[in-house]
Amino acid sequence: MAVVLDGKQVAAELQDKVRRQLERMAPKGRLKLVVVLVGDHPASASYVRGKQRTAEKIGLAGEVRHLPASVTAEELLGVIDTLNADPDVDGILVQLPLPAHLDERTVIERIAPEKDVDGFHPLNVGRNFAGVPAVWPCTPAGIMALLEHYRLPVAGRHAVVVGRSNIVGKPMAQMLLQADATVTVCHSKTPDLGVHTRQADILVVAAGVPGLIGAEHVKPGAVVVDVGIHRVDGRLVGDVDFEAVAPVVQAITPVPGGVGPLTVAMLMVNTVRLGFRRRGWGGDEAWQ
Amino acid sequence: MAVVLDGKQVAAELQDKVRRQLERMAPKGRLKLVVVLVGDHPASASYVRGKQRTAEKIGLAGEVRHLPASVTAEELLGVIDTLNADPDVDGILVQLPLPAHLDERTVIERIAPEKDVDGFHPLNVGRNFAGVPAVWPCTPAGIMALLEHYRLPVAGRHAVVVGRSNIVGKPMAQMLLQADATVTVCHSKTPDLGVHTRQADILVVAAGVPGLIGAEHVKPGAVVVDVGIHRVDGRLVGDVDFEAVAPVVQAITPVPGGVGPLTVAMLMVNTVRLGFRRRGWGGDEAWQ
Repeated sequence: MAVVLDGKQVAAELQDKVRRQLERMAPKGRLKLVVVLVGDHPASASYVRGKQRTAEKIGLAGEVRHLPASVTAEELLGVIDTLNADPDVDGILVQLPLPAHLDERTVIERIAPEKDVDGFHPLNVGRNFAGVPAVWPCTPAGIMALLEHYRLPVAGRHAVVVGRSNIVGKPMAQMLLQADATVTVCHSKTPDLGVHTRQADILVVAAGVPGLIGAEHVKPGAVVVDVGIHRVDGRLVGDVDFEAVAPVVQAITPVPGGVGPLTVAMLMVNTVRLGFRRRGWGGDEAWQ
Repeated sequence: MAVVLDGKQVAAELQDKVRRQLERMAPKGRLKLVVVLVGDHPASASYVRGKQRTAEKIGLAGEVRHLPASVTAEELLGVIDTLNADPDVDGILVQLPLPAHLDERTVIERIAPEKDVDGFHPLNVGRNFAGVPAVWPCTPAGIMALLEHYRLPVAGRHAVVVGRSNIVGKPMAQMLLQADATVTVCHSKTPDLGVHTRQADILVVAAGVPGLIGAEHVKPGAVVVDVGIHRVDGRLVGDVDFEAVAPVVQAITPVPGGVGPLTVAMLMVNTVRLGFRRRGWGGDEAWQ
């Protein structure tokens, strides 16, 4: 039976590390994360509350700017401009998806790159891609932290990523590549998924398809990371059929309690990193 | 015996297409490409002359700004600022490598993204990565044009890229992925290269190692693109052992006359695309 990779535990440790650093810096000031929520999408509202709660718990000021679904692009961009200019704000996150009348790309590019805690601004994406330290999107960054925590080696391994979204699949592939893995990216147009996934030493699944990966898709002894989360028949499941795959592999993340908590924890790490940098409190090493 | 993919021929056709569009726009004005050359590196000087010559041949104004190897960072950045602000300049290219006292990253990020014909500015890199039409680096863009010219399908194929440089390997992988290939990136830390390259339907080699890929590294019937160019015993050779591999595969690029001419042609395409866009002469469709 596989080791179950406890994302909740690793997330708690990361948060604790961040909390201690914030405590140490408390005499200098309090970092602030602002989450912009547009409209009343229930899942989004719940994610935003979770982020705010975690922020407050670790000693960040966590503010939610709730705008009506009817907000105009001009008004939303105006709010972002104000937050960009506010010296007390360290991190800005606009919760996606946005209502259809708002262009996500315009919004993402409007956030000041030095406050872009999601790592979605193309300037940060481009710097990451080129190997210049910027800020990585939270989910792949959380997964790298998980692999590191469990001392699961990446260099020289064959990592296979299923999914090519801008927020998970593509940056995940880049991070694994920079960590010296040989990396394959599969997606919905891959004719025979199993041919590739069965070769993976490390398999990261972010396809958005419940139960896509079964025992026949994995190599015995692989490390499997499941990014998917779906409610099926009242139960939360991932893109990986956990019951079928767990007996075969070396290590696997559960759903829930795997990648999800790490994403939120890395949001806190990103906020603190960017805040430290912007305030001149020291480089990335300072908070570690 | 494989089809030899004639990069020279495809480059000539691309250049002709660009030339006709420039002719059509001649009454409106003449687009201008400025190549900045620092120092007297002989290979760089030769590349720069080639670019200028091609630019002039197709009807672009091609200017070389030659600065001494002793130029200070401040002076070089000042030149870039002037070119950025000059309404007559459509494309700016700083020939790399730069002398050691100049930081390439700072220089790349100083070029106005809307004049960045190399596609190296992180804003363009990040937009490309996110699937937002920007400007792709010339070498991978040239390779995509070559595959398209020969009607070699990419979607659903397994593409393997050997090499992970910022200017070839990484953007090549992204372009192939966006064209719906399943993509694997190998590199110097890949333990057994052949395991991966032998699975490739499309194999792009940009490793910088003469003769790295032999017959034992390829699948019969594959398409092989060789980005390497080296002078060995007075002869130009690629990363692929052409004599050994050509008999086994479906199609292969020669060295020289393969990828090299395409890179220069795509520089012209990029200049014209960006020029058209900046001058409001129409979108990408206008010059095709």
